[in-house]
Amino acid sequence: MKALVFDGEVRLRSDCPLPVPAPDEALVRVRLAGICGTDLEICRGYKRFRGVLGHEFVGEVVESADSGWAGRRACGEINIACRQCDLCGRGLPTHCRRRRVLGILGHDGAFAEYLTIPLANLHSVPDSVPDDEAVFVEPLAAALRIVQQVPLGSGDRVVVLGDGRLGILCAQVLAGAGATVTVVGHHDEKLSVLRDLGIQAEHLWSGAPGSVDAVVEATGSELGFREAIPMLRPGGTLILKSTRAGLTTADLTAVAVNELHIVGSRCGPFPEAIAALQQETVRVRPLIHGVYSLDQGVRALQRAGEASVLKILLRMEE
Amino acid sequence: MKALVFDGEVRLRSDCPLPVPAPDEALVRVRLAGICGTDLEICRGYKRFRGVLGHEFVGEVVESADSGWAGRRACGEINIACRQCDLCGRGLPTHCRRRRVLGILGHDGAFAEYLTIPLANLHSVPDSVPDDEAVFVEPLAAALRIVQQVPLGSGDRVVVLGDGRLGILCAQVLAGAGATVTVVGHHDEKLSVLRDLGIQAEHLWSGAPGSVDAVVEATGSELGFREAIPMLRPGGTLILKSTRAGLTTADLTAVAVNELHIVGSRCGPFPEAIAALQQETVRVRPLIHGVYSLDQGVRALQRAGEASVLKILLRMEE
Repeated sequence: MKALVFDGEVRLRSDCPLPVPAPDEALVRVRLAGICGTDLEICRGYKRFRGVLGHEFVGEVVESADSGWAGRRACGEINIACRQCDLCGRGLPTHCRRRRVLGILGHDGAFAEYLTIPLANLHSVPDSVPDDEAVFVEPLAAALRIVQQVPLGSGDRVVVLGDGRLGILCAQVLAGAGATVTVVGHHDEKLSVLRDLGIQAEHLWSGAPGSVDAVVEATGSELGFREAIPMLRPGGTLILKSTRAGLTTADLTAVAVNELHIVGSRCGPFPEAIAALQQETVRVRPLIHGVYSLDQGVRALQRAGEASVLKILLRMEE
Repeated sequence: MKALVFDGEVRLRSDCPLPVPAPDEALVRVRLAGICGTDLEICRGYKRFRGVLGHEFVGEVVESADSGWAGRRACGEINIACRQCDLCGRGLPTHCRRRRVLGILGHDGAFAEYLTIPLANLHSVPDSVPDDEAVFVEPLAAALRIVQQVPLGSGDRVVVLGDGRLGILCAQVLAGAGATVTVVGHHDEKLSVLRDLGIQAEHLWSGAPGSVDAVVEATGSELGFREAIPMLRPGGTLILKSTRAGLTTADLTAVAVNELHIVGSRCGPFPEAIAALQQETVRVRPLIHGVYSLDQGVRALQRAGEASVLKILLRMEE
């Protein structure tokens, strides 16, 4: 089969063997996949991953031990848990100590004609959610993770730092929860997508220091942390969404004195993400900046790395 | 009256005017006061405070608009709130935007024969709690703040970084809540105080990385943060008690990926602290390493700054 592979560099291969599902896995024919910042990081060496890239997808189950899945359209959670370690036992399978992660760690990913994934990871996609929305379930779930962790809603003032793909989804989720949201970003094109969605978006934050209830750090840069701390009111919360923030130098005195909370936030609930798309409480199509065929995958990855570009999709079918 | 004053350097003055209580304040004759790390920081320039030092005290109310207080033994909360700003309105008076802080910010402190303090800040000390225990109410309340913020108890493995005054109180509070506590510190004398209290204490942490449910950072050093992060299990909590941690360089990637929580923690509940002393669930006398008269105050501050020394008290009466 054809697949977009990283083996030190990105290349399209047409000779990849069809993956063989384990007894608890399904074979999925990928219909559409999304390019995420993590994919771009992997191409710069992150996690030293080697194999088929990609973890945001919607596809069709073509083979599985559970015949109920056959032919169904599905998306899939990316963390493949051992279900045996202490963290799985605590109900933290996304943190499984022996986890593999689709297209990120020890398991081939979704930029391919076919992938394998445990049945336990699959979520059926309702007919009312088309492919080009369903492909956003994974990143939208990550955005929804915030409101699972931090009770934010009506009356709360929230700043989202970063106008990228994840920032825009987080902003919509928080606005949907009733919070007053301002996104701070640096790209005119992205800020205008936000304004079209009815969300306040600024180049520079103009609020008073110490006035904000929560800040979502979604810049992917080490600057976000330092910018966020002085914005927060005492008792406020900083949500760290950037999994590649890197080294930062920060004065933690303010965190202690102002009793701030900092919450790391990664993968989130698929059912809530599917429901949000079904109920149209979050709009994802305005984020689509291009759809490429798998054959054009290398070019698609380059495009996804451009500063002004939001979501680039890969369509697997010819 | 006599008082220990910081005006760029520490000096004992005997010509300080007797403070005059405002209508909502009491005049308190100080009996015993405790020297805290913050007092030592102030003598190094922290907060640019000028005036009478000290914020840990027990005394006797000698004058107040509320006659019910006259003659009663009391300790007092250190944050003097405006009761009018948005944070006071939110029930966060310890974070009042216009707060003064006893002996720390805009209000003379407790290393003096007399102090003034709002009646709203006073807490009556029961007869069963002697002065040399009651003087620990303020720092013990700060330690109890942790269990107000983070639900820690039976089955939780907690590491306290720092074997100082605050670290030992935090360790006792957490052990009392049922957690399995290990203190990591560098001073034999302090570690043996901990062991005498029945708490595991080590020079070097010997646990497995990623195994601890919570770490309390009470080192007062910027190293604590970096040490703590790799100890924590995914979903674990770092409690920052050091209000003078200073600049630190840290990789926040692990905070996001492992969904860690970081919680700043400062002042705590006086009623719970008084109850803990009354019920003898926390032992404070083993921390007393010296009692000095106010006349010996400069020497007492020097002594409190020695690495192996725990709590130094100042007795105001001759």
